[in-house]
Amino acid sequence: MRPTAKQVAELAGVSTATVSYVLSGRDRRVGAETKQRVLDAAARLGYTPNQAARSLRRRRTQRVCLVQGSFGGVPTDERLARDLHEMADGHGYSVVTLAVYSEARAVAAVDVLRGGIADAVLVNNVGDHLTEELLAQVVSARLPTVVIGNGPVPPGCDVVRAPETEVSAEAVEHLIAQGRRRVAFLAQRYELYRDRPIGRLLGYHTALDRHGIEQRTVVSGADDRVSAYQAATGLLRSPDPPDAVFAASDRAAISTIWAVRDAGLRVPADVAVVGVGNIDEGLITNPQLSTVGPIRHDYTDVVRLLFDRLQAEEPPPAREIVRPWTFVRRGSS
Amino acid sequence: MRPTAKQVAELAGVSTATVSYVLSGRDRRVGAETKQRVLDAAARLGYTPNQAARSLRRRRTQRVCLVQGSFGGVPTDERLARDLHEMADGHGYSVVTLAVYSEARAVAAVDVLRGGIADAVLVNNVGDHLTEELLAQVVSARLPTVVIGNGPVPPGCDVVRAPETEVSAEAVEHLIAQGRRRVAFLAQRYELYRDRPIGRLLGYHTALDRHGIEQRTVVSGADDRVSAYQAATGLLRSPDPPDAVFAASDRAAISTIWAVRDAGLRVPADVAVVGVGNIDEGLITNPQLSTVGPIRHDYTDVVRLLFDRLQAEEPPPAREIVRPWTFVRRGSS
Repeated sequence: MRPTAKQVAELAGVSTATVSYVLSGRDRRVGAETKQRVLDAAARLGYTPNQAARSLRRRRTQRVCLVQGSFGGVPTDERLARDLHEMADGHGYSVVTLAVYSEARAVAAVDVLRGGIADAVLVNNVGDHLTEELLAQVVSARLPTVVIGNGPVPPGCDVVRAPETEVSAEAVEHLIAQGRRRVAFLAQRYELYRDRPIGRLLGYHTALDRHGIEQRTVVSGADDRVSAYQAATGLLRSPDPPDAVFAASDRAAISTIWAVRDAGLRVPADVAVVGVGNIDEGLITNPQLSTVGPIRHDYTDVVRLLFDRLQAEEPPPAREIVRPWTFVRRGSS
Repeated sequence: MRPTAKQVAELAGVSTATVSYVLSGRDRRVGAETKQRVLDAAARLGYTPNQAARSLRRRRTQRVCLVQGSFGGVPTDERLARDLHEMADGHGYSVVTLAVYSEARAVAAVDVLRGGIADAVLVNNVGDHLTEELLAQVVSARLPTVVIGNGPVPPGCDVVRAPETEVSAEAVEHLIAQGRRRVAFLAQRYELYRDRPIGRLLGYHTALDRHGIEQRTVVSGADDRVSAYQAATGLLRSPDPPDAVFAASDRAAISTIWAVRDAGLRVPADVAVVGVGNIDEGLITNPQLSTVGPIRHDYTDVVRLLFDRLQAEEPPPAREIVRPWTFVRRGSS
């Protein structure tokens, strides 16, 4: 005979309401120790809330939550948000967004999610603020979870990877093959302050290592257009200016094109420029922007993962998809 | 003697729980007719939930909600979000964001807000999708509300106005004073499809009317950088190209500067360019961008309105503040 919530409550010495709160993740007001007692009791009895109740709970809010790493300004984040909202419209769901741009915000977001703000969550884990441990707390609240990011993720959630390191290395190899030897990198802040290089920065170092090129110039500035323009201008005025700039965002690469032109230099003759993101704006720059980024611009494949998981009768096995990236050579390199 | 929830429940023929749901706005599951009966009964008895209970409810979620009109990409929206998040951090609140970019989304947002997703709401009412009637439903749920917008707002919420029409007219007058007579306007979509001109578009027409200038050229394209570049390029290639472009956003004005330069023309000698927003990026264009926009770039004054209202023991009287705007002349005009 299946164990019941009542039995779990008795074993844990709490009310059945508390059991329901804890196991549904809506346990903001339940103390950590009580929470643990309930989880232990449920585990010992092999209790899982029955599917009907869980489905009911899952449809409780008719909301999905998008966790973004920025306040906007990142075109690919905007496209992700647009595609999520459109599919949510089709399914009769609302979308609430949380901005997670710090460790503190990540912890707060987990509380909000476990508090039951939405029925499922899509985490655009820029900067990996949501650690594997924090994500595990979300998944353990039975919240269908899809994570976009290259960091470690707990069991039970879908994950979307991007081969940004490999394709970034390919772009820098292309610059080297052109005879560029003074390749500078405009980095995103979150890639800079690590024990060891990751992501796009790692791709930059990997390519230069392969060709035994010692000179490395890494500066911050890829996070916004103004910083990028100022950083690029500083590089061009330095005693040993770069003959190529690989920027960790297309926005920064576009600012770099202006900076080069405003310095009276030519793109790509004097300075080659390559960005990351493959955004449409790269087609209206002069010259057009070489870039690395996803082959497909839309995120419907990612968003579909979320609604598949949200609507499944039983939680489906965790899936991992790798979105193909490519190097797109245009006039700027 | 003060009337009680019980008396309201009896008069309305519902449970006290239903009364509490309806009067706290957490009434998603209560039918419209029942809702009305409760509101009528409460009105007849002059019943208001006592302050203690209301405060408790108000601190229920420790969240504030930001309603934005876009998915990002609007620098001033990003700054508003940043300032709200920072002040929320200081007060120990989380921030959830709703994107309202259509009538349907506005209706859905009201349900979400009345459903109790947050303790207060800051509405950045771009496009006026949240009509006065919809906003009234939010305010009637006792949700502290601050609205940024020039449209009508219901009693009981604070409102933040911007004199965008007047200052836009000033900018166009400046172009006319320079002898420009073929002034084109790059419009935001939501300003175009109205019975009569509003906002920045109205400012454009107002200035040209004052000087009896018949020629008007209004095209869409101010909503994103790529559309703006394409729209500006189209204008420059037309049989009667403009000698000045007033763009409803700085992003569009910056794209216009590129379009003019890429067409082999000079800014401002051949074509003067003025934007709206007064964003920092206007300082790194070549030439620097003339613009109209708020004198202060930060929104702490707006965000403070929200937390004042949220933390007041008794709802404070509704306030209206007008954020001063100015015309900033730089090299592009």
